[in-house]
This record gives sequence, structure tokens and C-alpha cells, in this order.
Amino acid sequence: MVDVEIFAIGNELLLGDVLDTNTNYLCKQLTGMGAKVCRAVVLPDDVNVIAEELRIAVSKGRRLLITTGGLGPTEDDKTLEAVALAFCVGLKLNEDAYRMVSERYRQLFAEGLVDSPEMTEPRRKMAILPEGAIPIFNPVGTAPAVWFEWRSGHTLLCLPGVPRELVGIWENTLPPFLRGALGKGYFKLVEVIAEICDESKLAPIVNEVAKAHPSVYVKSRASRFGRDVKLKVTLSMSSEEKTEVDAKINAAIAHLQSLLKSIGINSEIVEPHHETK
Amino acid sequence: MVDVEIFAIGNELLLGDVLDTNTNYLCKQLTGMGAKVCRAVVLPDDVNVIAEELRIAVSKGRRLLITTGGLGPTEDDKTLEAVALAFCVGLKLNEDAYRMVSERYRQLFAEGLVDSPEMTEPRRKMAILPEGAIPIFNPVGTAPAVWFEWRSGHTLLCLPGVPRELVGIWENTLPPFLRGALGKGYFKLVEVIAEICDESKLAPIVNEVAKAHPSVYVKSRASRFGRDVKLKVTLSMSSEEKTEVDAKINAAIAHLQSLLKSIGINSEIVEPHHETK
Repeated sequence: MVDVEIFAIGNELLLGDVLDTNTNYLCKQLTGMGAKVCRAVVLPDDVNVIAEELRIAVSKGRRLLITTGGLGPTEDDKTLEAVALAFCVGLKLNEDAYRMVSERYRQLFAEGLVDSPEMTEPRRKMAILPEGAIPIFNPVGTAPAVWFEWRSGHTLLCLPGVPRELVGIWENTLPPFLRGALGKGYFKLVEVIAEICDESKLAPIVNEVAKAHPSVYVKSRASRFGRDVKLKVTLSMSSEEKTEVDAKINAAIAHLQSLLKSIGINSEIVEPHHETK
Repeated sequence: MVDVEIFAIGNELLLGDVLDTNTNYLCKQLTGMGAKVCRAVVLPDDVNVIAEELRIAVSKGRRLLITTGGLGPTEDDKTLEAVALAFCVGLKLNEDAYRMVSERYRQLFAEGLVDSPEMTEPRRKMAILPEGAIPIFNPVGTAPAVWFEWRSGHTLLCLPGVPRELVGIWENTLPPFLRGALGKGYFKLVEVIAEICDESKLAPIVNEVAKAHPSVYVKSRASRFGRDVKLKVTLSMSSEEKTEVDAKINAAIAHLQSLLKSIGINSEIVEPHHETK
């Protein structure tokens, strides 16, 4: 299983002015592809801070790093400068990226959405990439995403911070690229709804199931106290083999449901809403 | 200005199964109180990983660390175990916490929401705190929050992961506690809406204003391209003095609006939706 770290970049996130939904989207997609997200970090627009965090993740042996934010035309968009610093490479105009950005501005100009198709300095900035990086076309915004392998099998992917653009690039391009980087992997998450509102009463049962099925991650989700309130237990597992995941999760569910039944609690399986496709 | 780090703890966050909204809430509250959130991290339910991250933050000289999640009755709620490990203290039953938890279960029992008021092992777990820690009453859920000063002026605050409980504890108790820890501080954020949809055209203006007003953080927010789309520029600043913040932000806004006007772009100030009360 490939270890992943995610870096959400932007002062506006740390000021609390913008809610970061990108990290959740990426965690869901990556987990669903069988990767393991080890950590996610929110960082300011500070070249040295970002570069240091990237270097720490590299030194931990992570195989995939993903940044979001900081690719735009303004001077506080500093992600690629930090990448160049962290990986000791230069920054230079990338011709493929230049073509992508100018093509986008020609389209936007043709649609009457910008005043000119000219590649001004701020537009050109979005095509200045770390040496050795590959741009990925952005079908929604203007700044390309950036794919950078610092050594074989070790990849950094830089995505824009605007959620619509990030999702657009993901859906347009990324799963086949990432399938190569992540290798084989399968993930499944199942929810069991238990007719009980007291998590402290559920705790010994969850603990017993978790101990008996150590490869399955079993977690109860605390809920509101009240009449007709139910608690949710999620069971999830990743592995290279779908058959192994299915068998182990099913065994853990059966165990959980029989323990619940033995103390008179009804439960119900909710169809997996989150599994590798 | 006090440097803060936030740690959101829970495998469900890294699986993408739950969107973390607590970090955004805390960033907004803390920024509004004049603190500086330097970094926010999402971590798994792993004692060693959490303890290592706390130690790194301490070694960076952060004055306030806040964790969310991992205070509940189940065995995968490991935050306080990690705190004890990171700060080299023992874990023991805290009598004040025990009273708070048993009082909550007596109430819940009286309301018919739990089967018994008895302090079972999982309920008792929520009252086992790092030595020297102070519990803070949870008016919504059952697990108390935890306040721990590892040395004078250096505080760790552990909050529950359920957003309703976190907000309940915050509103019920925390601002006066934190005002002491954070000292004097004032923050203001103002939005200027510019009638322009091309961020690359706005970029040189934003850069010029940012350079002329270095204590004000000026950021344009990329938006959708389209007719009738407008771009937002946010200007924000923290300082100990309200008069200084108001004067410097107003000067930067006047500069921004005059530059926009000089290239024929109308703009409008949106009343500060985010400032110290």
C-alpha cells in the first residue's frame, strides 16, 4: 500500500476564511484506490515552511505527496517555488504548460470572458514549473496541475486550490496516472447502524470485534443522545486482494451483529458507500 | 501574537469518511482573537504519531496546541494517551473529571437516555487524564475537554471531535480561558468585490497593494470565468492595537480601490464579516 501525504496550502485556510474540502475529497478518492493517507497538513503561503514539510515527508519515505493550492497567477501563489526549493531543482518556463495556459486564454478570449489572449507576466507565471515536471491540463481554470517524480516510484502531484478545478482535473485525467503510481489496491467501508444511543455501552463490543479482526478498522461514531437516536459503526479495510477484504469485513460484521444481538440490540448493514470501483 | 497549531485526530478523517469542519471553526475563532494559526494537521488514531507531532510543535516553541477528537470511551480514542507520552506524565483518574462524567450520566439516565447511571469501565476511561491536566465540562456530550499547561504560558487544549460538542464547550467556557493564554489581540478581515473575472489581470494590482502595505495580507480569490462573475480580494491583519489594524487596512483598501478605478474597474467593500469582537 502506498503511503500518501496531503498538503493544503493557503493562508485563507489558516485564517478560517475558507473551509478546506479538497483534503476530504482527495482522502476519499485515494483511500478508494487502495492508498493509505498517513497525514494531511494545512500550511501557509510560505516557501520555506512548505519546502520543509515536503522534505520531511520525503525523508519519511512517502511515495506520493499531493499539494492543493498556490498555483495561480498572483505572487502569493508559491507552491511551485517551494517544490523547486525542496527538491533542489530550478524553475523554468515549461513549453507544454505554456501551450496549455495560452490555449485556455485563447478560448476564454473567444468566449468574451477575458479582454485579450495575450500571455502577460501573471499568465506566463502559471507555466513556470520545476525542471523535470510535467503539466496536466486544467479543463476548468487556467493553471495546469503539475506531476513531478523526484525519483522512480516517488511522485509529487500539485493541484489547484479551487475545488471545482481540482475535481475537474481529477476526473479528466488522474485515475489512470495514479493507478500506475499506487499499484494494485482495494478498499471497502461498510456501515452498521445499531439501535443504541449510548457509545459507552457499545464500546466493549467494538473493542472485542476490533481485537478479533485486527486487519479491519472498526470505529463507532459518537452521536447525539436522544430518543430514536442510533449509533453508527464503520468497518473498513484496504488490501491488494478484493476477496480478502470482502471475507474479512464480512466476518467482522457477522461478529459485531451477533454480539449486538446477544445484548438485545438490533442492527442493520448499510450498503458500502465507499469502495474501490 | 501567540503561535497556535491544531491537530485533528481520527482515522475516519484520513479515510475521507468524515469532513473535518472543526479545524475551520477553530481557525476562525482563534484568528478572531488575534492568535496566529501556523499549521493544522490531520492525524490517525496512533499514539506514537500523535505524540511525535505534539513534541515537534513544542520544540518549535508554539504556545498553544489544540487537538480535536479521540477523547471518547472506545479504545481507539487515544489522544490523552498520546499527550501523556509526549509530555512525559502519567495517566490517572481525575476526580473532577470523574464527577463531570458521572453527573452527565446521571442526567442522561434521569432523562431515560441511557440504561443506567453506573460508571462502567468505558465511562470511567473518559475521566482518566494526564497528570496535572484540568477537565472542562462538556455540556453536550459526555467526555470533558482537557486543559494542560506543560509550562507557564504554554497550553495544550484537547477538545472532542464531534462538532456539536466542540462548539458547545467553546461557547460555554473557552473564550475567557483563552483570552488569558492568548493575551491582547485584534483581527480584521475585509472583502472587496471587484467587477472583473480575470485573476491574471487583477494580479499586478494585488501585488502592488501587498508590497505597499506589507503588514496587511492581501489575497485575490480565483473564481469561475463567466459573464457577471466578480472576483473577491480579501485584506486582513492582526495586531495588538485595533486602531493600527483599522488604519492600515483602510489605507490598503483605498489604494486597491484607486488602482482598480484607474483601469476602469468598479469595486465594492463588503462589511467585515470576520473581526475581533
